[in-house]
Amino acid sequence: MADIPARNEIGVTTGPIRGSKKVYVPAQGNPDVLVAMREIHLEPSSGEPPVRVYDASGPYTDPRAQIDIAAGLPELRRNWIRGRGDVEEVAQREVKPEDNGQLGPDRSGGVPGFPNVRKQVLRARPGMNVSQMHYARAGIITPEMEYVAERENLGRARLAEYVRDGQDWGASIPDYVTPEFVREEIARGRAIIPNNINHPESEPMAIGRNFLVKINANIGNSAVASNVASEVDKMVWSIRWGADTVMDLSTGRNIHDTREWIIRNSPVPIGTVPIYQALEKVGGIAEDLTWEIFRDTLIEQAEQGVDYFTIHAGVRLPYIPMTAKRVTGIVSRGGSIMAKWCLAHHRESFLYERFDEITEIMKTYDIAYSLGDGLRPGSIADANDEAQFSELYTLGELTRRAWEQDVQVMIEGPGHVPMHKIKQNMDKQLEACGEAPFYTLGPLTTDIAPGYDHITSGIGAAMIGWYGTAMLCYVTPKEHLGLPDRDDVKVGVVTYKLAAHAADLAKGHPAAKVRDDALSRARFEFRWRDQFNLSLDPDTAEQYHDQTLPAEGAKTAHFCSMCGPKFCSMKITQEVRDFAAKQNQPSSEFLAAAPVANAEQGMKEMSEVFRETGSELYIGAGGREHD
Amino acid sequence: MADIPARNEIGVTTGPIRGSKKVYVPAQGNPDVLVAMREIHLEPSSGEPPVRVYDASGPYTDPRAQIDIAAGLPELRRNWIRGRGDVEEVAQREVKPEDNGQLGPDRSGGVPGFPNVRKQVLRARPGMNVSQMHYARAGIITPEMEYVAERENLGRARLAEYVRDGQDWGASIPDYVTPEFVREEIARGRAIIPNNINHPESEPMAIGRNFLVKINANIGNSAVASNVASEVDKMVWSIRWGADTVMDLSTGRNIHDTREWIIRNSPVPIGTVPIYQALEKVGGIAEDLTWEIFRDTLIEQAEQGVDYFTIHAGVRLPYIPMTAKRVTGIVSRGGSIMAKWCLAHHRESFLYERFDEITEIMKTYDIAYSLGDGLRPGSIADANDEAQFSELYTLGELTRRAWEQDVQVMIEGPGHVPMHKIKQNMDKQLEACGEAPFYTLGPLTTDIAPGYDHITSGIGAAMIGWYGTAMLCYVTPKEHLGLPDRDDVKVGVVTYKLAAHAADLAKGHPAAKVRDDALSRARFEFRWRDQFNLSLDPDTAEQYHDQTLPAEGAKTAHFCSMCGPKFCSMKITQEVRDFAAKQNQPSSEFLAAAPVANAEQGMKEMSEVFRETGSELYIGAGGREHD
Repeated sequence: MADIPARNEIGVTTGPIRGSKKVYVPAQGNPDVLVAMREIHLEPSSGEPPVRVYDASGPYTDPRAQIDIAAGLPELRRNWIRGRGDVEEVAQREVKPEDNGQLGPDRSGGVPGFPNVRKQVLRARPGMNVSQMHYARAGIITPEMEYVAERENLGRARLAEYVRDGQDWGASIPDYVTPEFVREEIARGRAIIPNNINHPESEPMAIGRNFLVKINANIGNSAVASNVASEVDKMVWSIRWGADTVMDLSTGRNIHDTREWIIRNSPVPIGTVPIYQALEKVGGIAEDLTWEIFRDTLIEQAEQGVDYFTIHAGVRLPYIPMTAKRVTGIVSRGGSIMAKWCLAHHRESFLYERFDEITEIMKTYDIAYSLGDGLRPGSIADANDEAQFSELYTLGELTRRAWEQDVQVMIEGPGHVPMHKIKQNMDKQLEACGEAPFYTLGPLTTDIAPGYDHITSGIGAAMIGWYGTAMLCYVTPKEHLGLPDRDDVKVGVVTYKLAAHAADLAKGHPAAKVRDDALSRARFEFRWRDQFNLSLDPDTAEQYHDQTLPAEGAKTAHFCSMCGPKFCSMKITQEVRDFAAKQNQPSSEFLAAAPVANAEQGMKEMSEVFRETGSELYIGAGGREHD
Repeated sequence: MADIPARNEIGVTTGPIRGSKKVYVPAQGNPDVLVAMREIHLEPSSGEPPVRVYDASGPYTDPRAQIDIAAGLPELRRNWIRGRGDVEEVAQREVKPEDNGQLGPDRSGGVPGFPNVRKQVLRARPGMNVSQMHYARAGIITPEMEYVAERENLGRARLAEYVRDGQDWGASIPDYVTPEFVREEIARGRAIIPNNINHPESEPMAIGRNFLVKINANIGNSAVASNVASEVDKMVWSIRWGADTVMDLSTGRNIHDTREWIIRNSPVPIGTVPIYQALEKVGGIAEDLTWEIFRDTLIEQAEQGVDYFTIHAGVRLPYIPMTAKRVTGIVSRGGSIMAKWCLAHHRESFLYERFDEITEIMKTYDIAYSLGDGLRPGSIADANDEAQFSELYTLGELTRRAWEQDVQVMIEGPGHVPMHKIKQNMDKQLEACGEAPFYTLGPLTTDIAPGYDHITSGIGAAMIGWYGTAMLCYVTPKEHLGLPDRDDVKVGVVTYKLAAHAADLAKGHPAAKVRDDALSRARFEFRWRDQFNLSLDPDTAEQYHDQTLPAEGAKTAHFCSMCGPKFCSMKITQEVRDFAAKQNQPSSEFLAAAPVANAEQGMKEMSEVFRETGSELYIGAGGREHD
């Protein structure tokens, strides 16, 4: 077990994020549902209450939690799931060598199975449908929905005086999220709560246009790099910084065992691309893929607790040649696997033909569809072309078919799109897919900055998030170049958190601006620690500050490192306030914009008033990044 | 001279950017004007010509150039300036101790004066106006305009088959830039060429809505950090990565000498905020500032060769109290200096009252105005408020007054603005300032990510650049926290280059997409070196690639580090192409989207065709960042 830390040495990062503490807020109307949040405490001098922020980090940031990755997380949703009386326990499908890519001799490389595997798993009783959409359409408000409602409100009470400011492009964002609103959105298909009944460790979260914009982080084992322990650590690390869901894109060997370790320790929904594992089972020969092997893989992953499956059922045979004239052809791995299968057999995709059978499986475990865009553009040149939109409309058709069985659906989107073509992607998706949540990869707004694609895509992500995309799949600085390490994962997550937040602000989400304003007040009042703690990455903020002003005193000093100790524009603003206050008159009447030279006496008086308010002497030390 | 490298040890980075070489392209119609560009050479296997890119790096990237920062750069424009016969040589204003902040005892810290200072400087002959706008309005096409035209075309010939694609929001971007078009834009005030007649070392560049979007980098000495040599190095470093202009925001001591070192070695326009130095001259007491001291500072800097001045003449007395209710008040340093002066004397700003006299100085040296937005918002909460827009309309009034004397003008903009309020900034600026070039700082689209503000602002910068902003002032990761070091400067510059390029793409600039497409083709064809060399930061791109696949062979291998050696989606696309080609029919007729099950025979045949085209066996190794 070389690469798995012993029980007494946790291989993941734990402990609170600086300046904040974990709190559990009782859900409205159901105090038994305790919603995890993070509270950032401000300096007493601020006279402000703690700021509650959305927290995807799970028990790992709670000092009171006992973390043991060899045992897995507690089953938060166990009683909710069983309490509905529509599930049965069955023996888990037996793990086969090929599930871990073990063809022939043992190639496990000493990767151990998860010690605490469940022998019994859950599935819907015959004829039952355990999807949240099914409950919602039956008028049932589940604890999962109650959890989500409180979580989206960031635990705040209804704000009577809340003033709406934003452009939501036709979304229906409420001033206050009620459990009933969540139920309606799920029933309508406009939001999903991905939470497989075999992943009771997960904390419910919603993905939908009318909720806070979410982000996904990709991790995964591969033949060339990483090991199980480092993937579990990457999962915990990515949610610490804000990943709302995590996709395990493991390939090669030990796929099954790696996934078990990740799911059992994950408080966020886990997504996968089942075709990857199916391909491994046929030795990597796409043409040899069969419906039977794929179906068996779905059951295998469903029983482990995967919360959403990327299914590239929109890659239809007739669309494949539409990519022939592209600059970068087919760049989706799943899409190209299916393209290869379709061409080899010259048949329609079995994912498309067997779609309703797949849906039967989804509703038996409450797994959400993430309909893959296998024909998404891989370059600015290929954006918004015939192949891409042909597939999108097929995804719309499949969405309606899934909804007929009350199965939750989200739609994957591009990719590489120049800014002026981004909105068309959102508009067509809303039209084609009946407002099913959109889940995009970026998009990258230019191709010329490899090494900085977290930024080229962060621009597109913020924009499409504003236009209505519900979840943004992160891109790290290593995109197109290599495999992201721990630092890349953090940079990717923080970049996408700020993009998602910028989108929430622009949409006018009631809860979003609270944090910006609190940080701005802290900045204005030189509460440095509050400024660090309110930021998405307090560690980096403080570190950068200390590179210029290492002294401890500088963190409490009332000046900023831009303008130095003697001159400060923000201090002058305070004088302006004192002065304006002394004037005791509204700014509009403060003084006519007309020439004032003929008011000598009045000026002398006001001049005195100013000197009385105290005009200390400041000596400049350099406004480095602003004039 | 401790902090200045000796002549034989250059303290700046020189040599070509990898994979490219410096070229000098003769301007259309005037072969005497040689325009500096960079040519990126591609692998012979590509069968593609070199890609010419815009190059602001000056002689430092030309191996043939003799670099000696103690001597300064050659005077590229010397004969153009003198050839017009409207300038006279005069003795340079004598440098006073207070120009370097030397009040009382010597505090120079051993900073030497520039060894090669000109004793004689140029100015317009009495009654003459040497501004490019003045020549343009007189119908004269200057060599500067010819230089700019060729530069904006990236040396390419007129593209007959060019297909326009973009949304330019009402701009007038031509398919091909002619010297006459440049002249018209300058005459119209819609573009500027900042190039003081005392900065003949500068390579002409245009800032305007209908030209490529430009970026500015800020550097500068300060009392707490850095020295002259490191500032010169930062200037050279920032233009190496693409800064089109550089602002010297030095404060504290040795301002005059630092500026001399920077200007004499800069091939790009240099901007300053004269009020900073004026404040030093009065010991940092804003109330003691006088028109005479400020005017003397303008002359001092004009004779050194500063190309544009930030003048906060829009901070009028009546607007100051409008900031009293803001969350972050006045955050502009120049703005708060003037606010303090106005309040202390309770007088209208002397910058506003003396504006026409300042303009007289500007036209005597061809210095462009950068009208400062001293009341810009410092937080999301303060965006687009009364104070900000009141000042903006005053800047519009001042623009027209400057234009009456044929003086070039650009307008500074915010700041901190949520995405949904960005376009209003652009629209109001166009309306208020008659399309004078807009020059914005970001804007930051959220306040909650200190440490990542190059990204929060890169999002806003790309968007407002798309909407029509002509130049984007960079923001580094240290914004709000500390002083940027060399690495921060590079990250800030590259981030803003990609934002500016994303804007050019979205506006449909004819020259922009060439580089994206070349890089995408290189990516598709696994020409790794070409992909690195075509990127904005080849060093980082290759370094990231090598972290995953260090082997030299991996750079020529035809697979990518995402999917490994055996399986590759891009290889499959090639099969799709071969297949589609063999079909010899357009994709639309390839196959009806209708069920295909009833075409068994045809399928078997096509299936054979595919096998003949060769379907090699691929084994997956992990699509890490895309499915």
